[in-house]
This record gives sequence, C-alpha cells and structure tokens, in this order.
Amino acid sequence: KAVRLAVIPGDGIGPEVVAATVPVLHAALEADGLRLHVTPFDWGGERYLREGAAMPADAADLVKKTDAVLFGAVGRPDVPEHELVWGLIIGLRQQLDLAVNLRPVRAFPGVPTKVRDTDGVDLVIVRENTEGEYVGAGGVAHAGTGHDVGIEVAVHSRRVIERAAHQAFELAGRRSGRLCLVTKSNAMRYGYPLWDWVVREVAAQYPAVELETVLVDAMAARMVQAPRSLDVLLAGNLFGDILSDLAAVLAGGMGMAPSANVLPGSDVPGIYEPVHGSAPDIAGKGVANPVACMLSGAMLLDDLGHAGTARRVRDAVAGALRDPRHHTADLGGNATTADVTSAVLNTMESQ
Amino acid sequence: KAVRLAVIPGDGIGPEVVAATVPVLHAALEADGLRLHVTPFDWGGERYLREGAAMPADAADLVKKTDAVLFGAVGRPDVPEHELVWGLIIGLRQQLDLAVNLRPVRAFPGVPTKVRDTDGVDLVIVRENTEGEYVGAGGVAHAGTGHDVGIEVAVHSRRVIERAAHQAFELAGRRSGRLCLVTKSNAMRYGYPLWDWVVREVAAQYPAVELETVLVDAMAARMVQAPRSLDVLLAGNLFGDILSDLAAVLAGGMGMAPSANVLPGSDVPGIYEPVHGSAPDIAGKGVANPVACMLSGAMLLDDLGHAGTARRVRDAVAGALRDPRHHTADLGGNATTADVTSAVLNTMESQ
Ligand SMILES: CC(C)[C@H](C(=O)O)[C@@H](O)C(=O)O
Ligand SMILES: CC(C)[C@H](C(=O)O)[C@@H](O)C(=O)O
Repeated sequence: KAVRLAVIPGDGIGPEVVAATVPVLHAALEADGLRLHVTPFDWGGERYLREGAAMPADAADLVKKTDAVLFGAVGRPDVPEHELVWGLIIGLRQQLDLAVNLRPVRAFPGVPTKVRDTDGVDLVIVRENTEGEYVGAGGVAHAGTGHDVGIEVAVHSRRVIERAAHQAFELAGRRSGRLCLVTKSNAMRYGYPLWDWVVREVAAQYPAVELETVLVDAMAARMVQAPRSLDVLLAGNLFGDILSDLAAVLAGGMGMAPSANVLPGSDVPGIYEPVHGSAPDIAGKGVANPVACMLSGAMLLDDLGHAGTARRVRDAVAGALRDPRHHTADLGGNATTADVTSAVLNTMESQ
Repeated sequence: KAVRLAVIPGDGIGPEVVAATVPVLHAALEADGLRLHVTPFDWGGERYLREGAAMPADAADLVKKTDAVLFGAVGRPDVPEHELVWGLIIGLRQQLDLAVNLRPVRAFPGVPTKVRDTDGVDLVIVRENTEGEYVGAGGVAHAGTGHDVGIEVAVHSRRVIERAAHQAFELAGRRSGRLCLVTKSNAMRYGYPLWDWVVREVAAQYPAVELETVLVDAMAARMVQAPRSLDVLLAGNLFGDILSDLAAVLAGGMGMAPSANVLPGSDVPGIYEPVHGSAPDIAGKGVANPVACMLSGAMLLDDLGHAGTARRVRDAVAGALRDPRHHTADLGGNATTADVTSAVLNTMESQ
C-alpha cells in the first residue's frame, strides 16, 4: 500500500521545509512497510508571475486524486499578497470545504521559549476554516472620493459552526474533557452571539465535556499567563488565526507549529501546512526550521490511519530537539535545515 | 483652580480601584496647589437592575460638564453583558466620539511577568475607538429556523482612520519615530486594505516617522517574542482590543494596564479607565490591583495639562511596586488594594 501525497512547496522557505519533511515521511513509512508516492505541484508565486494564476482552475480536482496534501508556504514580495492567499491557500481551503483547521501546540523539552513555565503545554486550536471574516464579502463605498468607507462583512452560519463544534467536542472528549469557546459577544452582536448559542446547544450532546466561553481579548492574555489551563480551544476563522500564531510562541515560535486543514468524515484530502509563512527574509539560506512542516506531516499520517508512523515522526522530532545543536536560528541555535533533517532521520533510525 | 472629575465606579472591582485612585489624584493635585472636585455617577449594573438602563439618556451631556471621567469597570453576572457594554462604555465612547483609545504598556522594575526579557518594555497601542467591528451593524438571517446565518458588518471610514493615524504619527514622532500599523489585509479585502492605503498616505506628512505594516497574527506572536521591537502601534477597534490585553501581560497582567479614551484637539472630556474588567470573582474582597486605575488617573492629569502632577503619580506607583510587599495577588503577592493605596500615598509623600 502507498500513500499518495500531493506536495505544494510554494514560495520562500516553503520548498526548503517541504524538502526536509518528505524524506522524514518516507523513512517513517518505509519502516512500517508503506510506500510514499509524491506528486509535486508548482503552485505559488512563481507560477503566478509566469501564468497569471497561482494555481490552475482545476486545482481542487487534481488534489482530490491524492490522499493528502503537504503544503509549504506562499507569499513573495513581488506578487500582491491576495493573489497568492486567495488564489491558493484560502482558495483551496474554501473550494475543498475543509471545515476545520486543527492547530496543536505542544512544548518540546529542551526548546527555549520566551514565555516562562511552558513545560507541559499541550493544546489544540480548532479553527473554523471556511467562512467568518474570511468570506471576502464587502466593498468600499465612496471609493476614491476622499470619503471612502470600507465595509467588511463576516458570515457565520449555523451549519458551519455546528460542524466545527462537533470536531472540537469530540477532540476534547478524547483529551481532557475541557473545551474553551472563544468569541467576542460583548462587542459584536450577531456572529459571535450565534456562536455562543449554537455551541451551547451542541454541548448538550457532549455531557462529558465541560464548556467555557472566553472573550478573545481575555484569551490572548490567558494564553500567555496560564497556558496550561487550556486544552482544546474552538474559535472562528480570524480569532483562530490570531490565537494560533500566539500559541506557537509557547512552543518556541512559528517554526514549531503544525496544522491540518480537514473535512472530517469525508474522503476529501486534507491540507497539512506549517502555520508559519514564506519568510522571504531567510528564504534560500537553508536555515529555516523544518519542525512545523515535519509535525504537519505527522498529523497527515495520523489522519490517514498510520498512528504508529506518525508517532515515529513525532518522537524523532522530539528526540532531535532535546539537543540544542539541532536548534535552528529561530530557537536560538545555529543548526541548518539540513542539520535538523539529518538529526531527525538519525534519531528515527536509532529509536 | 480645580479639576472637575466625573467618577463612574461601575461594577465589580470598579468601585474598589476607583476608591483607591481618587485619594492618590487628590494628594498629587494638592501637592501642586490644585483642587479636585469629584462628581460621582452611579451608572452600571446596579442602576440597570433598578431603572432598566445602565446610564441616563443625557449621560453624555452630564459628562460634558466635567473636565474628565474616571471610569472603573462594568459587568455583572446577573445583567446581560451587552446591556452594560453598549448601554454604558461603548455607548459613551461612541456618543462622545472619543476617537482613540490610548493604551500604554510599560514594564515596572520589580514586577514579575510571565514573559521573559520584558525589562524596558514601553509601548503604546493607539486603538481606533468609534467604529470598525464595534458599530453593532449586521443581523441574523433565517433566525431560529435551524439555518441561521449571523452577519457581522465592520465599517472603516477614511475620516476615522485618518484621525487615528494622525494621533499615532504624532505620538510616534514624540517617541521613537517608529510606528507599526496592524491590519489583516491578506485575508480581509476591504476594511484593512483601506487602512493600509490611508495610513500610508498620512505617513507622507510625517517623514520623520518610519511606518511598518504588520499582520495581526504575526503581531500577536511578535508582541511576546520581541516586545522591545515595538513602540507605537496603530490598530483598529477589535485588533486594538485584543493586542492591548496581550500587551498588558508584558507589564504583569491586566491589573497594570491603563487607558485613555480621547478626542484630541477638542474639549470633550476623555474617559480614563483600566483595561481590565469588573472581575466579579474577586469583587468585594479588597484585593483588586488598583495600579491600572491609578495609571489611568495619571494619563488624565497629563491630558489636562498637569504633566508634573501626572509624573508624581507615576513615580509613586513605580516606587511602591519596587517592593513585592506592595504586590496584589495578580502579581503573585498578597497586598490588599488598601495596602497598595497606602504605599503609593506614602511613596508620594516621601518623594
Ligand atoms: C496566509 C494567511 C491568509 C493565513 C490565514 O490568515 O489563514 C495564515 O496566516 C494562516 O494562519 O494560515
Ligand atoms: C467591555 C468591552 C466591550 C471592552 C472592549 O472590547 O472594548 C473591553 O474589552 C476593553 O478593552 O475596553
């Protein structure tokens, strides 16, 4: 049996972290007698400059022929950002209707962080991934008259809230039994109150899970002040975005945070991507931290039913990170991307 | 000459921190030969329960007869949150058209924080305070049919962005000459791109200030990872709200963060309030940290032209905080609100 993997390296450090991850997935699968079939897609900024579109019109169909997608990052200084964001990653999330974006953050022993007392931090943000503030609706009134009024419309529908909520409750049930819903219903009067209402309704089906509702501003502070009080968080698209970058800091930074865009209960392939961006400032230097991408690969293996293989990857990453000689610059070290890759592969072999 | 102060203690710990602050303002002004005239207003949750409205219809007019407002906090478990938020604090901000909410965060020597390397942190968030996500526009389609769609509309107008931007550039010019604009224009297509555009235009009038534009998710991470890289931040209403709670952590937590809602260049009284809420869990116990409220009082004195008096308050607070015996529970100590008040008053006398 083979895993059919679509690979979208993208821009900036995307290709570097993806190139570091594929051999790790390969080695882990091989040890379990499984093969890895990689189909690369050259979607991203370069393709945009060449062909006027970051991905082809049938991108979603192409991807659907595979089991899962490993995605690097998009964004380059010479391409308008929305062309790559809407034309690629937000586009794919919405076209494939990938309901939730799961963003686990776990502190690895030996990795320094800017926040004190992060030992044992282990939380997951369940981010709604298809609507909210990311629907692209709105417009500008009086545009260009000097009296412009920008209107931004967020859409929160019960169906979408419900399916995200079910994911979050199920996850919380398998973990600590605690779920924090993050909204801002004291200031926003329609979308987030609907979230509060619908999620409380869904909660009735999960009596073993304790639901707490927290305002997003308070949650931002709490995430740093008491991260171990958190286990599973459920948030809309925008708040999930903000909180997951923040949560990454608890694990050492953006280079440590993986994610999975998935439509659970379907056979639509998930997109697995590091939370970080294309980091043009360090691109091409071979110094990017590949851990977030490798851990995204582990999530991918998990979702394809290869839990043991996923654990192998995670354990190898954790093992390599115990030694500061395997820390890249973002973690205060001076390892190269290739150093980390070898360390992970060696650790895997010896474990 | 007297300072005419409107005082709205509000709910929860609001009355406690206000009661701790008024004597400090009084003492500081007296030392400068100035008097303090306090007009208390019983607006808040209790009034809502008694009279069905958190404040009277002519609240804005009443307040306009004073020089400035010291506001505690609103919110109590037995009153629907929006009645107190829209019926009082958001209501007043919008009715008085208080253009910006200035939220300085400064690390005080001797105060422990959950974030490493916060020594010397000294930043100000300039939060747009009258529109954006806080206009209360939107609705719920298909309400109650099981197919509800919550629509939340944010409004960002050029005039309002411009006036907030001028405040931010002027402030940055008086400080480090560095300004960070926080938006999310890769995902939101109308409101934040307008912010980027208008603020860049305004920037042309402030050649001495260097403008950087940062995505809100990246800013959340950076605020914890590199807070000293930040000086003045300019953000819309929602992002300013989230980032200011987060920034407070750099100074020890919500009990340390003051704010000023102001309409610069007008004689509309500003509203000065701690960033924290009413904290019903500790209300009535006399253990709330009054520092955020005292520092809000210092901002008030500054804005009324009493810079020396404001400095007196700030120095006394800083002096008291050097001694951990004057730290309240939120800072890991066991001082009461009254202990802190005495310490600040004593320090002021001896300085
Ligand atoms: C690139 C950007 C649109 C994206 C988002 O906001 O979702 C990124 O920040 C992320 O978190 O995956
Ligand atoms: C009470 C609430 C509406 C308010 C806000 O979001 O503005 C508060 O969080 C603040 O920061 O002053």
